[in-house]
Amino acid sequence: MVSPSLSPYEQLLAKLRRTYLVETVGSVLSWDEQVNLPEDSAGLRADQLAVMAELSHEASTDPEIETLLRTLEAQAATLSPDQAVVVRLTRRDYDRMTKLPAAFVAEKARQSSAAYHAWAECRKKNDFPNYAPFLERHLALAKEEATLLGWGDRAYDYAIDKHDPGMTTAIVEALFAELKEGLLPLVREIVTAAAPPPDVFRGYPIESQRQFLREVTERLGFDYRRGRIDVSLHPFCGGAPSDVRMTTRFNEHAPLDSLFSSIHETGHGLYEQGLSIPDLGTPLGQSVGMGVHESQSRLWENQVSRGRAFWSYFEPRFRSCFPEQTRTVDSETLYRAINAVEPTLIRVDADEVTYNLHILLRFEIEQRLFKGSLAVKDLPATWNALSSEIVGLVPPNDTLGVLQDVHWSGGAFGYFPSYCIGNMMAAQLWYTALTQFPDLESDFARGDFSRLLGWLRTKIHREGRRFDTLALVQRVTGEPLSPRHLLRYLRERYLPLYATPAAQR
Amino acid sequence: MVSPSLSPYEQLLAKLRRTYLVETVGSVLSWDEQVNLPEDSAGLRADQLAVMAELSHEASTDPEIETLLRTLEAQAATLSPDQAVVVRLTRRDYDRMTKLPAAFVAEKARQSSAAYHAWAECRKKNDFPNYAPFLERHLALAKEEATLLGWGDRAYDYAIDKHDPGMTTAIVEALFAELKEGLLPLVREIVTAAAPPPDVFRGYPIESQRQFLREVTERLGFDYRRGRIDVSLHPFCGGAPSDVRMTTRFNEHAPLDSLFSSIHETGHGLYEQGLSIPDLGTPLGQSVGMGVHESQSRLWENQVSRGRAFWSYFEPRFRSCFPEQTRTVDSETLYRAINAVEPTLIRVDADEVTYNLHILLRFEIEQRLFKGSLAVKDLPATWNALSSEIVGLVPPNDTLGVLQDVHWSGGAFGYFPSYCIGNMMAAQLWYTALTQFPDLESDFARGDFSRLLGWLRTKIHREGRRFDTLALVQRVTGEPLSPRHLLRYLRERYLPLYATPAAQR
Repeated sequence: MVSPSLSPYEQLLAKLRRTYLVETVGSVLSWDEQVNLPEDSAGLRADQLAVMAELSHEASTDPEIETLLRTLEAQAATLSPDQAVVVRLTRRDYDRMTKLPAAFVAEKARQSSAAYHAWAECRKKNDFPNYAPFLERHLALAKEEATLLGWGDRAYDYAIDKHDPGMTTAIVEALFAELKEGLLPLVREIVTAAAPPPDVFRGYPIESQRQFLREVTERLGFDYRRGRIDVSLHPFCGGAPSDVRMTTRFNEHAPLDSLFSSIHETGHGLYEQGLSIPDLGTPLGQSVGMGVHESQSRLWENQVSRGRAFWSYFEPRFRSCFPEQTRTVDSETLYRAINAVEPTLIRVDADEVTYNLHILLRFEIEQRLFKGSLAVKDLPATWNALSSEIVGLVPPNDTLGVLQDVHWSGGAFGYFPSYCIGNMMAAQLWYTALTQFPDLESDFARGDFSRLLGWLRTKIHREGRRFDTLALVQRVTGEPLSPRHLLRYLRERYLPLYATPAAQR
Repeated sequence: MVSPSLSPYEQLLAKLRRTYLVETVGSVLSWDEQVNLPEDSAGLRADQLAVMAELSHEASTDPEIETLLRTLEAQAATLSPDQAVVVRLTRRDYDRMTKLPAAFVAEKARQSSAAYHAWAECRKKNDFPNYAPFLERHLALAKEEATLLGWGDRAYDYAIDKHDPGMTTAIVEALFAELKEGLLPLVREIVTAAAPPPDVFRGYPIESQRQFLREVTERLGFDYRRGRIDVSLHPFCGGAPSDVRMTTRFNEHAPLDSLFSSIHETGHGLYEQGLSIPDLGTPLGQSVGMGVHESQSRLWENQVSRGRAFWSYFEPRFRSCFPEQTRTVDSETLYRAINAVEPTLIRVDADEVTYNLHILLRFEIEQRLFKGSLAVKDLPATWNALSSEIVGLVPPNDTLGVLQDVHWSGGAFGYFPSYCIGNMMAAQLWYTALTQFPDLESDFARGDFSRLLGWLRTKIHREGRRFDTLALVQRVTGEPLSPRHLLRYLRERYLPLYATPAAQR
């Protein structure tokens, strides 16, 4: 397939391009599965996805890639800086794909499938004990994987690095400790100061919701010539940078849910659409990792779209889409509903203030599990104790506690911290942008988000994987990643709304 | 991938299954391209489809298939009848896939792509001369392909056999000659007897059209748990038997167009859904060919859904979906509109009576091209002369004449006859079904189509490729394929409507 007249570097690019194409086909299939698949076609789709996974693995572990990498590594001095990035990161990816024995990979896949079904069943039945052996096995596999890849006993460091390259347990620990210290009193202040706003949303027609969110996401900069939004059970963003497939879901009585979940996915989609098209399939046209991705979704969802400037532009549009429904809702009530804070047991239902508490809890648990200071069988008791301490709520059962998330059933340890890293990074980017463009929010009040998007395009999206998470933050914001900005943002946004006597507002 | 403990036959099935999965992934991508693809994503999709075509070719030409076939052919005496069918037809398919040199296949693909774009451009500009060289090259390639596959100078026989296994030029020639003899006077009788009915359809809301056609196609037996219908520019039916993807298109002022095109695709879809699920990917779970496929779509579209019994059930439903629009349309006017006959220049716009004339014309042309008695450069003149003789209309330009169809630009000679073979077979099946179940139409009047579908399931769908087109017709109807039934059907349906004095009706 590869013409021999190509240089080794060009041959490598051709290999990467091929892998990319096979992977993006799998992504179309997954999207289609969740958006379009007729109910009795699940078996065929599972088989199709399995074949595509096999083909994708074959393409990405092609032994010719090893040969090309060796040739290029031997010529390192002749490579341009960008070529050096491609070679270095392709080596990292290739080793991670190929250093694991086939038997190990197969075992992990089998285990993940079995654990997923066990989790779904046990969550329904509130039965942690029968799920525990699957978690134990996953934990053992995670440690084995780290050893096989040369991380020795730093298995949790490896788990974190997989999601956020360059990040370590110690770094996350320090960041989260500082965040926790500031966040716990802040949440207490907000929650004790005011009852959550009343739910004033009833009977918002789906078709009008669809129109409104289309207008919002388009204004934010999502390019519908290179993407679309559809409906699925769980919102997600997939596809490819030239064909981003986002989804949302609608509820007549919760118009803000579909709106903000769509804006969240739009943040992911804007990152994908901003990747360098000529470099797609190479590390120069890929996103850095989970944390940076989440920083983009959260920045648009929270800092931008929960702010007064955004709503000063969109509130009239919202009211004209829902004239009957909003007649008795005054502006301040609407704004407070948009920024409602109330501790919840379930992470995915949490507001942006208390969301971080759920992550602190999970990080603490994962650390203890990997250190061996917590046995899997003791997870529920520890979960509940930490939930009481951190979230301020004790789950009445494991279904609403330790069994609530799907991640661990797939062996995805070290994933949760990314959400909170994303939140911290979003706030830090936000204040950097505001420093750079002090009148940025006056753009928003005119419905113009292009200056912020252009800045993110240049500073983040177009960089691909040139910099690891921390280096990217330092480069763009001029200082190391810190929770200070998130804490400042939450205070500035929520204290005036909830913890300041009404007379002062 | 294949476990060595499997028997050679089981190993062959595993290979076929894998090819099937890769092919059906390509089919999902093609469907998605026409239904969902954002406008600026065409380049990526073309690359994805090219990779899938490559992977599909790799899977279907896997040299291990040759080894397994040889082993099984050597054990022929030990194979069950079904196994023998699988081995015999897999050999036929495999040889056709592998006997063509890679350079030839690549050349044909390049030529098809170039010719397609030339055709689209030349059709727009009414410029046959610049398209002619592409056709000449395709003709040469078609002859070369036949020679490479051992058909010697019987290139047109091979072209026909590719679409309808077992069919030859001589057989088609004889069938079409008899059809032409009966059809030309019949068309004359209908067309001179009555003006086409007035167009009474205006302002039929798309949403109601969608509801009505969903109800119709569901009643006919399409299983929406294993398929769906969406909108695309050109209606088609693709996907896989457990996930059939049909499309249609809507026009407020032409509700019958989307209805009948949907019923047509439903006929294809019912055939696909009726294939033997456990045998998918093997010849036992595949359709026979184009002609038989078309017999299914035409039978449901024409014999069933243009009949009085069908409309005695559905007319009240139609009126309740479109109460305003149908108020001034009486039942007889509606029924005549459903069965309007009027010669057209364009094949795809033709009614079921004059449609066959377009095929007779194309078959005549293809025969002469392959015999060498017609040069490509003389095509327009011959087309126009034959159009005058057979269709009764002379195209004012080549865009509306010889340039109207896409088929030849892809090198698809021998394809057009299938449409007419399908029409003949549909009518022959129809009278066989009526002989077997004389009260069949009373089912339709009650909205029940299950007896007909059940019969087709058993007689046609479940047979897979066990029998070639002609053998299947003989087996199911008890006599050889003949145009008599189509002529009888057209006379019985259209003469009472158009050529009989009103007083006798």
